[in-house]
Amino acid sequence: MLNVLTPTEVIDVINKNFTTATFQYEKILTVDSVGRILHNDIVANEDVPSFNRSTVDGYAVKASDTFGSSESIPAVMTVTYEILMGKANITQTEAITDNSNSCVAISTGGAVPEGFDAVVMVEHTESYSDNMIGISKPAAPGNNIIFKGDDVSKENLALKAGAELTVHDVGILAALGFEHINVRKKPRIAIISTGDELVDITGTPSDGEIRDVNGYMLAASVNKFGGIEVSYGIVRDDEKSLINVLNDCIKNLDCDIVLISGGSSAGEKDKTAKVIESMGELLFHGIAIKPGKPTILGVVQNKPVFGLPGHPVAAYMVFELFVREVIARFLGTTIKRKTTIAKLAEAISANHGRAEIVPVKFVDNVATPIKGKSGLISKLIDIDGYILIPRDREGLSKDEIVEITYL
Amino acid sequence: MLNVLTPTEVIDVINKNFTTATFQYEKILTVDSVGRILHNDIVANEDVPSFNRSTVDGYAVKASDTFGSSESIPAVMTVTYEILMGKANITQTEAITDNSNSCVAISTGGAVPEGFDAVVMVEHTESYSDNMIGISKPAAPGNNIIFKGDDVSKENLALKAGAELTVHDVGILAALGFEHINVRKKPRIAIISTGDELVDITGTPSDGEIRDVNGYMLAASVNKFGGIEVSYGIVRDDEKSLINVLNDCIKNLDCDIVLISGGSSAGEKDKTAKVIESMGELLFHGIAIKPGKPTILGVVQNKPVFGLPGHPVAAYMVFELFVREVIARFLGTTIKRKTTIAKLAEAISANHGRAEIVPVKFVDNVATPIKGKSGLISKLIDIDGYILIPRDREGLSKDEIVEITYL
Repeated sequence: MLNVLTPTEVIDVINKNFTTATFQYEKILTVDSVGRILHNDIVANEDVPSFNRSTVDGYAVKASDTFGSSESIPAVMTVTYEILMGKANITQTEAITDNSNSCVAISTGGAVPEGFDAVVMVEHTESYSDNMIGISKPAAPGNNIIFKGDDVSKENLALKAGAELTVHDVGILAALGFEHINVRKKPRIAIISTGDELVDITGTPSDGEIRDVNGYMLAASVNKFGGIEVSYGIVRDDEKSLINVLNDCIKNLDCDIVLISGGSSAGEKDKTAKVIESMGELLFHGIAIKPGKPTILGVVQNKPVFGLPGHPVAAYMVFELFVREVIARFLGTTIKRKTTIAKLAEAISANHGRAEIVPVKFVDNVATPIKGKSGLISKLIDIDGYILIPRDREGLSKDEIVEITYL
Repeated sequence: MLNVLTPTEVIDVINKNFTTATFQYEKILTVDSVGRILHNDIVANEDVPSFNRSTVDGYAVKASDTFGSSESIPAVMTVTYEILMGKANITQTEAITDNSNSCVAISTGGAVPEGFDAVVMVEHTESYSDNMIGISKPAAPGNNIIFKGDDVSKENLALKAGAELTVHDVGILAALGFEHINVRKKPRIAIISTGDELVDITGTPSDGEIRDVNGYMLAASVNKFGGIEVSYGIVRDDEKSLINVLNDCIKNLDCDIVLISGGSSAGEKDKTAKVIESMGELLFHGIAIKPGKPTILGVVQNKPVFGLPGHPVAAYMVFELFVREVIARFLGTTIKRKTTIAKLAEAISANHGRAEIVPVKFVDNVATPIKGKSGLISKLIDIDGYILIPRDREGLSKDEIVEITYL
């Protein structure tokens, strides 16, 4: 009955059961899209820029006219024109008045007229009278020009479906004229807290009672990691009410993922598993990881239903490692975790036959394990990230180089 | 006139001029507070937990009763009571029926009655008939108990003003019963794009024109990094309209910070500097960094006003390195950038007498510089972070170990 999986096996189960092929999407303003998942490929409708653009203030030239120039023997040129910003290109005939040594004054961002193939920075020129300048440094063809389509070229793929949009992606979308874009709809994630010892945040715990910490932490995590929290509050611990609530979340509240947190005692955990089994399928019952062992995942009416540990630290870590993966599969994207390497400040023992997540503080490339009794939420205050010790390692040594995943 | 500062000097100027002492704040739901800045210290009104809590399923005992027990000679105990979850503690007299060898059954999270100082895991016990159990492993005092106040103790500082709130901070606030908290008000940040070559995102650029990329990128950055974007759109390049718009942003739109992006040509940059000087004070005119040199910072009516480079990549980097610092000073917090170390895939030349920001792709602990002409926004698509080369280094060697700051 007790089907305990390794962390890797859990990811396999998630990939197998919850990889979505068709996605719901919505149209939003591009400027609000950072952190959202792009629904469809963005193909450029036009070249960016749409003309050859100068990247400096100076003079557009034919590069060959400047060959051999130097400080002592500058190339003498006639300035035939001044390019105004934002104005249509002038014709080659207007710009080039005789066969050689014509140039045009141009500002950063200005359109380089046809017939010219480089821009010389104003710092490498000297101004003479009568629209004449001297150029003291030879230019190579292409110098200081962004050519038409250099940035994004027409009909090319600019951004890929499934990408998590960034600030610079917004820049590319703005350059291409996309005021709105389609992004994947956020999953609605039900959060149910169970446990007869729980009171709501607004309540005053009597002796033996505590406030519902997990419900709030999970709601905050869901908001942070791209879901919409549908907080159901505290549900008393009996199978019938749990069945009703689950049905309500999936059918009436249209939730895509369900998180049931706690209860913390053995009997309560079995209750969650039993309810999932009676309504659907239990995929596993336990993960070989510390903290986080009493984690359950099942499917009810095609929706993933997690039973999360009651210990807040364990629930937090299971969310980070596994619930986020289910959210990512729902959205059709992949998680890019930020990592670093660090020297371990002290030895860590680990000999559990299961992987271990060690919260650490990270300062000046040194990782210091955060100690304290398991289950204390205050021990997370100083956390910068965590080390994942594989199940086959019997702990880590002082000064060992370890990989940290940032939180 | 041209007052060019090093990056460190810029940070000094920002600290000196824009460090706030009094803050505006607003009351919000704790569950929505991740990423916001806590306005006041949070002192615990009560102990968390408010009672001695078992962290396992098992039996609460007097540890001394278990001393010397083993698999072969278990300590035989009488189970006098079963603690129900969430119920008030039973009295010592109820629990301890004779002078020794009494214990009570308890679940994870249950209240350990007075007179008991350890909990033995059910795995280390054997059940006999008649409410008798055998304990096969001695327990030390304190084993498997979180004591009253262990997590957060009454009247202690739980969270500090100025902290950027995290998911686990929400957990602590929930444990302490804070449904709402005070957070610093987000700064209103005006975004003005100048440049006669710009058209709006909805427009079609004629030859010589481009869409306003910076306005959109900056708005997205402001949203991401804790501000409220007040997008003013494109302002034509003359001093009078710039003065009117600046006044409007600060007075009528109540903006706390102003970002003027572009124009990209030398003349336009001078215009922004001149306008700031005529209305307030210019703090510097240029940063010795590449890209980002043509950056201006001034004060108008006590508000910071940036003149940002016209090149999107430069504007993006200046926002990351310097505008974010001004936002952080406004909010009374500090930025915690995530870094890692990496091996450099290829040599980078840098010999400019100014610091250089090199965008990189980071895979398998190797950093590969992203090349491409400066000013191309598409070159940021693959960016994972950047290397900052100090001004006194003449480039970096292949295989050199470098520090990367994640974006």
